[in-house]
Amino acid sequence: MIDKFEVAIIGGGIIGCSIAYYLAKEKMNVAVFEGNQIGMKTTSAAGGMLGAHSECDGDFDAFFPFARSSQFAYSELKEQLNHLCGLDIGYRKGGILKLAFNESDRNELQSILSQPTVKWLDKETLSEMEPHISNKLLGAAYIEEDVNVLPMAVCQAFAKSAQILGATINEYSPVHNIHKKENGFLIETTTGQVEAEYVVVANGVWSTTFFKQLGLDRQLMPVKGECLSVIDEKMTLKHTIFHDHCYIVPRSNGRLVIGATSIENDWNEKVSLDGIETIIAKAKTMLPNIAHLKIDSFWAGLRPQTFDRKPFIGHHPEEEGILFATGHYRNGILLAPATGQMIRDLILKRQVNNEWVEAFKIDRHQPFAIK
Amino acid sequence: MIDKFEVAIIGGGIIGCSIAYYLAKEKMNVAVFEGNQIGMKTTSAAGGMLGAHSECDGDFDAFFPFARSSQFAYSELKEQLNHLCGLDIGYRKGGILKLAFNESDRNELQSILSQPTVKWLDKETLSEMEPHISNKLLGAAYIEEDVNVLPMAVCQAFAKSAQILGATINEYSPVHNIHKKENGFLIETTTGQVEAEYVVVANGVWSTTFFKQLGLDRQLMPVKGECLSVIDEKMTLKHTIFHDHCYIVPRSNGRLVIGATSIENDWNEKVSLDGIETIIAKAKTMLPNIAHLKIDSFWAGLRPQTFDRKPFIGHHPEEEGILFATGHYRNGILLAPATGQMIRDLILKRQVNNEWVEAFKIDRHQPFAIK
Amino acid sequence: MIDKFEVAIIGGGIIGCSIAYYLAKEKMNVAVFEGNQIGMKTTSAAGGMLGAHSECDGDFDAFFPFARSSQFAYSELKEQLNHLCGLDIGYRKGGILKLAFNESDRNELQSILSQPTVKWLDKETLSEMEPHISNKLLGAAYIEEDVNVLPMAVCQAFAKSAQILGATINEYSPVHNIHKKENGFLIETTTGQVEAEYVVVANGVWSTTFFKQLGLDRQLMPVKGECLSVIDEKMTLKHTIFHDHCYIVPRSNGRLVIGATSIENDWNEKVSLDGIETIIAKAKTMLPNIAHLKIDSFWAGLRPQTFDRKPFIGHHPEEEGILFATGHYRNGILLAPATGQMIRDLILKRQVNNEWVEAFKIDRHQPFAIK
Amino acid sequence: MIDKFEVAIIGGGIIGCSIAYYLAKEKMNVAVFEGNQIGMKTTSAAGGMLGAHSECDGDFDAFFPFARSSQFAYSELKEQLNHLCGLDIGYRKGGILKLAFNESDRNELQSILSQPTVKWLDKETLSEMEPHISNKLLGAAYIEEDVNVLPMAVCQAFAKSAQILGATINEYSPVHNIHKKENGFLIETTTGQVEAEYVVVANGVWSTTFFKQLGLDRQLMPVKGECLSVIDEKMTLKHTIFHDHCYIVPRSNGRLVIGATSIENDWNEKVSLDGIETIIAKAKTMLPNIAHLKIDSFWAGLRPQTFDRKPFIGHHPEEEGILFATGHYRNGILLAPATGQMIRDLILKRQVNNEWVEAFKIDRHQPFAIK
Repeated sequence: MIDKFEVAIIGGGIIGCSIAYYLAKEKMNVAVFEGNQIGMKTTSAAGGMLGAHSECDGDFDAFFPFARSSQFAYSELKEQLNHLCGLDIGYRKGGILKLAFNESDRNELQSILSQPTVKWLDKETLSEMEPHISNKLLGAAYIEEDVNVLPMAVCQAFAKSAQILGATINEYSPVHNIHKKENGFLIETTTGQVEAEYVVVANGVWSTTFFKQLGLDRQLMPVKGECLSVIDEKMTLKHTIFHDHCYIVPRSNGRLVIGATSIENDWNEKVSLDGIETIIAKAKTMLPNIAHLKIDSFWAGLRPQTFDRKPFIGHHPEEEGILFATGHYRNGILLAPATGQMIRDLILKRQVNNEWVEAFKIDRHQPFAIK
Repeated sequence: MIDKFEVAIIGGGIIGCSIAYYLAKEKMNVAVFEGNQIGMKTTSAAGGMLGAHSECDGDFDAFFPFARSSQFAYSELKEQLNHLCGLDIGYRKGGILKLAFNESDRNELQSILSQPTVKWLDKETLSEMEPHISNKLLGAAYIEEDVNVLPMAVCQAFAKSAQILGATINEYSPVHNIHKKENGFLIETTTGQVEAEYVVVANGVWSTTFFKQLGLDRQLMPVKGECLSVIDEKMTLKHTIFHDHCYIVPRSNGRLVIGATSIENDWNEKVSLDGIETIIAKAKTMLPNIAHLKIDSFWAGLRPQTFDRKPFIGHHPEEEGILFATGHYRNGILLAPATGQMIRDLILKRQVNNEWVEAFKIDRHQPFAIK
Repeated sequence: MIDKFEVAIIGGGIIGCSIAYYLAKEKMNVAVFEGNQIGMKTTSAAGGMLGAHSECDGDFDAFFPFARSSQFAYSELKEQLNHLCGLDIGYRKGGILKLAFNESDRNELQSILSQPTVKWLDKETLSEMEPHISNKLLGAAYIEEDVNVLPMAVCQAFAKSAQILGATINEYSPVHNIHKKENGFLIETTTGQVEAEYVVVANGVWSTTFFKQLGLDRQLMPVKGECLSVIDEKMTLKHTIFHDHCYIVPRSNGRLVIGATSIENDWNEKVSLDGIETIIAKAKTMLPNIAHLKIDSFWAGLRPQTFDRKPFIGHHPEEEGILFATGHYRNGILLAPATGQMIRDLILKRQVNNEWVEAFKIDRHQPFAIK
Repeated sequence: MIDKFEVAIIGGGIIGCSIAYYLAKEKMNVAVFEGNQIGMKTTSAAGGMLGAHSECDGDFDAFFPFARSSQFAYSELKEQLNHLCGLDIGYRKGGILKLAFNESDRNELQSILSQPTVKWLDKETLSEMEPHISNKLLGAAYIEEDVNVLPMAVCQAFAKSAQILGATINEYSPVHNIHKKENGFLIETTTGQVEAEYVVVANGVWSTTFFKQLGLDRQLMPVKGECLSVIDEKMTLKHTIFHDHCYIVPRSNGRLVIGATSIENDWNEKVSLDGIETIIAKAKTMLPNIAHLKIDSFWAGLRPQTFDRKPFIGHHPEEEGILFATGHYRNGILLAPATGQMIRDLILKRQVNNEWVEAFKIDRHQPFAIK
């Protein structure tokens, strides 16, 4: 006899677990299929900045409001998840400082600075706020509302809460094939077969396999990010700082997380000497004294990049029972709550912001082919 | 030239770091000397229960009010330390259930049950609160106010906050000898010499060396405790449970900590097969389904036990510049704030509860010699 | 453009890497596709006993000579691999003692004892050879020629040597589908597509997916084995000891490996409290003093079990270009060299012992269906 | 009652364990007192090159013959220790290449090149031997007889063999004071007191404490070395390469060890970002492709440096029962066997090479004071 679910979710990272949580809250019978352990791939490698502003890249029509709604959702989730399952998601305020070393850097910050929630800080103000920061700075854009969380803690809190609400979480269960059948789908995993009315493909960069099986000419490119963490014994960096694709995030466990490289098309999840050297150099540019801090650990993860760096969220164009929630590039932590809510609303046929549907649908126009 | 401090603290566990914090807040010039890394010995091995009631063993004159004042201090420290240094100490409510499997167990709980803050729960109430608990129970004493913290997080928060307030923390600096000199003391560490007006001996079970050097016929016995942690995927234990010297503590990181053995006079800090076997058996008695949970890690630590299981806190009987803050047995985490405050008050010649001075002085009457 | 290989091997455990090595030595153009890292699944969890005798279970027609030929191959490989790639496979003599606590145990050893290379040792001889062994023993079967190796070291030495000889090893490349096409096969991996003339399915318990895709009604059952290792500070166990499905293997790095449980149909690769408790109890029965030793680490792996506990090695019954080398149950390390040689000979159309072909073919008669 | 030993050895690194082994072989009743775990400080951080030639710095009178005799001892120890205790010390041939990028480098190699066992290799020969080495080299001095071992494996093999021969090894037992008494010494450890006829101070950079207690105006300076290891998947470096104080050692476990920085007077045993950056840069100069290799782990250790960088081996000038075997700077692994033999011979009053006695005695002339 084959297990049957209303919704089968492929992928147990922060996206899949968020979806499971929001559906389980609506009493849907859902199951997550994770090939490894919950959150141990891309999620565990993330820095955890909730950079709604800092990541919006000028897209104020769809991405920014979607990201902001997700950021707001976190301030509620913090309590809800803790109350339900006892885990603490490590929500920490402080905000992000996007540094400008020169006029060119400053110009790039113009579009963010035009937001009412973002302020320009001059060098003096900056060095009062963060005394150890580089003294070669012109100033910084201060985005107070971009806070941070502990990505693995969020993912585990979603998963455990979903389980408490009735969801099934299957670890060590990679999915190989999705077959259409009458009234639903047959999902073949290494560990057996199940049936489901809806299938959500949410396994990050490894989703391309299913795009092909499901007749879609789309693909995700892995962009490997290498990180390391150091023990912040005395410096007490209070804000996340960011420059030239590198960030330093102060965490509530006393570690500074430094990241990340961007190695395109590299599927290997280990950290190279080159990568470590690169991020140390960038971190020293922002925070010279970090050179004296002691290293705690290092790791890497694969960001799933779409052709336009926006996620694929929504129905399969021809097969309503199939949905996608993948390709979140470097914004998976930030967008997890809003993605979970949007998938919930699509399955339950509730109203969804049409801007978002259009911006994130998988068959949106791709202006050029990526190799 | 030799560095000079007002207070030199020997030992960088939670006790030494608490003292450093409370003294640094008063603008004292303090230094901590830790042979290894901050908190990595006994502190890191602790369960983190703040069991003012559950550990008081009927001593309502000195131990209990001292422990309660320490427990209260934690509810303030939580915010204070986070605000000062950014670390989160993992304060988690829930309370402790001391289980009774039979009338004999229940009788042992009588003295705790006489406290107004402690309630007896019958079997039914208990199994509603904790559905996975053993069904062979008679009931439990519920101590709602005995909460828990993450011991290493507390210790690091004390250390970092102390540093921010001006204290010096020296890791990898074991102290070998304390020599009296005019107007103070010369402290010989492996890494050099310093002078101080006051010396606080706070290095747990390794303090015996200094008792002898300082002419005191006292000694601490190591009582090794072995622990393990498991991943609480679904069970969601909400309260710490305790029976027959074994506890299971649910932590805010989703782990259940199970401890601990009590191996007297064993200085070896590794975990034996015997120890693991013992605590698994005890944990299964309390929470049968725990057998299916997956192991996360294991560790051991040495509790510093005095002849009457109460700490040594106070001045050397003949040498006012020497103070002791050691021998906290299994209550180091619970008593750290009150110990730090008491040492501060003794050094600053503020008023200290005389009951506590008498109960914890190192030269109190020892009714029998321990070997 | 698609990469083309003569042979694509699915699975980078010790079986897949052995095949790659033996084929690369013949200048075949081979590639290995491993979903994770080389050897990190079942191989890394193995004890490493080369128990040709101790595992033969009375099958002296095919299994035993095959296993013995594999065991002999190791004594040559030791030097060959070290010379080629510089790695040391940890080959260690000593032999295996199969313990008998009573007459019933002794009777079970009769078929092994009938072999000329196996001796019965009485209690006295045994306690001279291994003074710490249980004193409740009747005696033991001593199989001097069953030696041991370090499984990960063997796997890495095969992989690195194969690479030096020209093979391609792809880590983090799980295979999803095998499609037949003219003159060969198209292999779809998460990371891209390749073509090959021959495909060898060698990914252990995860091979069942491909049995189904390839039209075969066969399946492998995971039998999880949980292990732990302790630091053998003084006991100096010299021989592997074995009783009631539990072994203790002394390794050349000073660790004793204790294993293993047998949990059928459990795909979860983490270690349960129950499992740890079980193997500690069994180890103490054999070697009572082991209780005092200190624990080093713990882990689990999934043995791939076929219906008759013999591996599937050979061609697909209808599709010559597809071969299987999987289902080695608990004998993967022992049988890796002979399996690599047999697959090499089948592909190169060299002569292969017909007993082995018949005994290990995937379409051999299955007397009963397993669920 | 106090335990009595003929010889008490302070320090359980490779030097202390070697001494214990050689004395236990002579049936002396010895005990080792180690503050932490056997070998876990400086020994575990070493690269493991046995660089008798490469480290001799032109001292062909005492250091070189002493180092050579130690190197020869290893070729016998390999079998002896394995036979006695079952451990494999990871002895690996290959030799050391000291690289010359220019004429200045080459000039520095002249004194080594004058040895009959050392050859100059030109660029072409070199690139045949090691195809991945920098193409900017002039050539290299090839010292075929400088091989390598696994330092922790050697240390553990000495310790375990000593135990089998009757020695006592006490871990977690730091020594605080040595007191002279009639017919011997009283040694105070944290865990208790023992008596011994002879005391050997062998605890590396932490020996300075005892120099002072024993009335000697000598001191050791810590020179911290930071290292990292990478996974050598394909490069198969066959020889240790060395340039500008940085080495890359290929180990028999498939790792390349890269080291080491030299940070004077730093007692902190953690690795800094600066340190990692420095050794990556140096490694890339020698072996450019190493940049692509994946990092395995990182660590640091404290070399004990004397004023002339030669060890202190021999009797206390006024107190015959006290001996020193410390200050081996970066040559502890190389010199461990010869040091163990020399201490054995001094205690047993056997003949010892007088050149060595004079060169290594602790009261040899110190031409300048170190701060």
